[in-house]
Amino acid sequence: MKLRVRSDLVYQFGPETDAIFQIQAAHWPGQSMLDERIVTTPPVVFKEDVSPFGYRTLRARLTGEVALTYEATVDNGTLIGLPPGASQHDWTDLPAEALTFLWPSRYCPSDQFGRFVERQFGASRGGERVLAILDWISEHIDYTHGVSNAGTTAVHTFIDRAGVCRDFTHLGVTLCRASGIPARAVSAYSFGLNPPDFHAVFEVFLSDGWWLVDPTRLAKIQGLVRIACGRDAADIAFLSTGGACQMVRQKVTVAEV
Amino acid sequence: MKLRVRSDLVYQFGPETDAIFQIQAAHWPGQSMLDERIVTTPPVVFKEDVSPFGYRTLRARLTGEVALTYEATVDNGTLIGLPPGASQHDWTDLPAEALTFLWPSRYCPSDQFGRFVERQFGASRGGERVLAILDWISEHIDYTHGVSNAGTTAVHTFIDRAGVCRDFTHLGVTLCRASGIPARAVSAYSFGLNPPDFHAVFEVFLSDGWWLVDPTRLAKIQGLVRIACGRDAADIAFLSTGGACQMVRQKVTVAEV
Amino acid sequence: MKLRVRSDLVYQFGPETDAIFQIQAAHWPGQSMLDERIVTTPPVVFKEDVSPFGYRTLRARLTGEVALTYEATVDNGTLIGLPPGASQHDWTDLPAEALTFLWPSRYCPSDQFGRFVERQFGASRGGERVLAILDWISEHIDYTHGVSNAGTTAVHTFIDRAGVCRDFTHLGVTLCRASGIPARAVSAYSFGLNPPDFHAVFEVFLSDGWWLVDPTRLAKIQGLVRIACGRDAADIAFLSTGGACQMVRQKVTVAEV
Amino acid sequence: MKLRVRSDLVYQFGPETDAIFQIQAAHWPGQSMLDERIVTTPPVVFKEDVSPFGYRTLRARLTGEVALTYEATVDNGTLIGLPPGASQHDWTDLPAEALTFLWPSRYCPSDQFGRFVERQFGASRGGERVLAILDWISEHIDYTHGVSNAGTTAVHTFIDRAGVCRDFTHLGVTLCRASGIPARAVSAYSFGLNPPDFHAVFEVFLSDGWWLVDPTRLAKIQGLVRIACGRDAADIAFLSTGGACQMVRQKVTVAEV
Repeated sequence: MKLRVRSDLVYQFGPETDAIFQIQAAHWPGQSMLDERIVTTPPVVFKEDVSPFGYRTLRARLTGEVALTYEATVDNGTLIGLPPGASQHDWTDLPAEALTFLWPSRYCPSDQFGRFVERQFGASRGGERVLAILDWISEHIDYTHGVSNAGTTAVHTFIDRAGVCRDFTHLGVTLCRASGIPARAVSAYSFGLNPPDFHAVFEVFLSDGWWLVDPTRLAKIQGLVRIACGRDAADIAFLSTGGACQMVRQKVTVAEV
Repeated sequence: MKLRVRSDLVYQFGPETDAIFQIQAAHWPGQSMLDERIVTTPPVVFKEDVSPFGYRTLRARLTGEVALTYEATVDNGTLIGLPPGASQHDWTDLPAEALTFLWPSRYCPSDQFGRFVERQFGASRGGERVLAILDWISEHIDYTHGVSNAGTTAVHTFIDRAGVCRDFTHLGVTLCRASGIPARAVSAYSFGLNPPDFHAVFEVFLSDGWWLVDPTRLAKIQGLVRIACGRDAADIAFLSTGGACQMVRQKVTVAEV
Repeated sequence: MKLRVRSDLVYQFGPETDAIFQIQAAHWPGQSMLDERIVTTPPVVFKEDVSPFGYRTLRARLTGEVALTYEATVDNGTLIGLPPGASQHDWTDLPAEALTFLWPSRYCPSDQFGRFVERQFGASRGGERVLAILDWISEHIDYTHGVSNAGTTAVHTFIDRAGVCRDFTHLGVTLCRASGIPARAVSAYSFGLNPPDFHAVFEVFLSDGWWLVDPTRLAKIQGLVRIACGRDAADIAFLSTGGACQMVRQKVTVAEV
Repeated sequence: MKLRVRSDLVYQFGPETDAIFQIQAAHWPGQSMLDERIVTTPPVVFKEDVSPFGYRTLRARLTGEVALTYEATVDNGTLIGLPPGASQHDWTDLPAEALTFLWPSRYCPSDQFGRFVERQFGASRGGERVLAILDWISEHIDYTHGVSNAGTTAVHTFIDRAGVCRDFTHLGVTLCRASGIPARAVSAYSFGLNPPDFHAVFEVFLSDGWWLVDPTRLAKIQGLVRIACGRDAADIAFLSTGGACQMVRQKVTVAEV
């Protein structure tokens, strides 16, 4: 699918504030960049990197109001939904780089949910287990703005039964890891999301590959343009700063080309 | 320093339990392995890996009682304590692989300590800041067994004012990250620790390099044989399992050669 | 029902440690004491009180090992299980002394479960709601020793899906308060509990009265000898101390007379 | 001191919502009501009560927008600040009704702070201890709006080092209880608070009486008109509701007569 993605971000920074943006479409097998540009006002020279996980960071020290526009045309290739028959690996058969996504992280304390997943999803494994987790989340969690914040963990969402895409993803990742399945959070541009915004989904490692799933069921996998992936929101924030920073405006659009 | 390290571990596993050991001395610049062996009863064929962070994992599916002995002679080179004058990097000047160690993790919720570090250590930066954090920990936290467990985070230790090496390390890592300094947990064999045991310390990225520090002040940096490093205890556990597992015996020894 | 209850408690106290025991059968409408005695070694002169809630406290400053035996023959009258038709009061119709049991407490953070109870038990009210809560607990929580401790709250039990009578009671109280129903924890001697121990149950205010329920379903309401009641375990601990104290032995027996 | 207190509250309630107001000056030894009135639009017939702790509640079921004005002229008598020499009671010498204020509550988990208070305030007891706690709070906690909410506990405030009067009070109560001193939260009208608002302070039981202290140091004890007291904010909220409710306007004034 060919998609035109764009984000317009305006932020007010304190003096000389370290800032890291993760808003560029990832360099990723199957996802190709047809064109791409970044414009900032005032002009900023970013330090660009590609992480070991294929995602890209833009770093700079910023002061005062900075407006950043990112635009790209991306062919996201052919993304396939998780097949129920996808098989769960013994840990010895996992690629070494997947192991870290078995462990609990800041917003995904999977170590606390071992008994819950066993009781709730006992018999199932692999794709069947992940789909059962997604069904459970759909049935028990409401998509609701204003009930969570930057500090909200999967524990809170599990109790409060409501949240936004970030919270759904943290809970999904948590329950998969608690099931012995590597899972990592993915930030994305998402076609068809209403209102348009940065989206958070996750992927699981089964049958020798990573499979994207959207626990909110708000968008189609086929319309996702991958930005970054990592342990949880701590890794994939579209903006991390080392000091005071206030959002002035933020707008995301995604259109089919 | 040339050191002979040894761990004797006996565990009782449930049927076909995924197990990952991280007990081998790391392949790490400046640390050289003079000889090394692993013996298990009954015999186990491990899958061996070296992680992107240079540490090594042994994976197998185990059943019933398994005894594992690891022995190595290691020259750990010359480890230098953190100089107070080590300078703190702007985030743009950090190597990309250090960025992940700025973010909060499962046991190190550094996002909650921003105001504390600013109030407590306000003026200082870099090596001076890290040494101030280590002083604060020494003065305010008691080394005490039995007050923490596998779920204990830096929040708990900060309030309870007591813990073991794992807890000291989590608190140190947390306060450094909250100060904008990359910090990661390191597991190690440690010469002179009494009683001998696996040790947890951490390292910070300053003046273009990682520097080891021991927040417990129980052992000398010079006597550390590095095993693994990562975000926190979730990454560097010497044994992670995918199911039931009970410790039968565990003994660690470290001697100068 | 006429019951003979007895507790044998041996504790080791630090020097001059404030201690409060709540182990005596309560003075309570319908519950009558036929005989009763307390013996301590060494002899202790307790300060005795009856609380506004009808329960009794024994206070002393203790040093070293103290053995206390409490024995009583109690007629606990006729305790009736909660009728499904019991009606829920508007808050304006509650007796003033019931209001405090609507609010969250240390181990019962009911303020966090508003959305859960509405989603899970939506339509039901009153006795029907409480019985639905008890059914949910029975189905989702395992009675398991060793997974909780003195600091465990209903949040932990809700996630971990296991606990002992104290945890079941905290979760039941929490879900009832979140439903707008006054609920309070009750400590009791319990006939038929195996192994015999102090028991924790709770009661709800419906249809102009308090009704006892046992969320563990381990004992019959008819066999309960009431000791104390309060917000949660913080109020009804059978022993609270102002300093170091170690259990040496503890034995509870309850027999039909 | 003779004070004229007034609160103007406008709230939007959902259909038939249980509401409890605690905004009236308390009937309390030394505090006398010279005149008092409540006006509501539309007219509401409240159920009035005086609690065992001497505070007053107004209960009704409300629908839609309700405006309530409370006005009173109160002589608050002579309130004396805590003398440093006030002595701490052994628990056996406390009045029975003070015991409940030794235990942890929803927002004051004093059970977690035993080691901290011992380490930090070790030698001191009684009035000297409480004053040391107040000094510590003054030195380490910033009075800051917007960093806490209705769910914030003393643990959060202790870590985040900032909060409002409610948070200061919860932390003060927590540290006193952890020191074996009964402490309870008190809501009040407060002369000289800028901007005027409901105030939260606390009181400790020492030398056979309760002594008011203001951990924020924003107002003088002498200018407090007592409303309610209890375990923590859960007990003394000026408005508790059993359903949806939104603040439209709220204004408090206190003037010397």
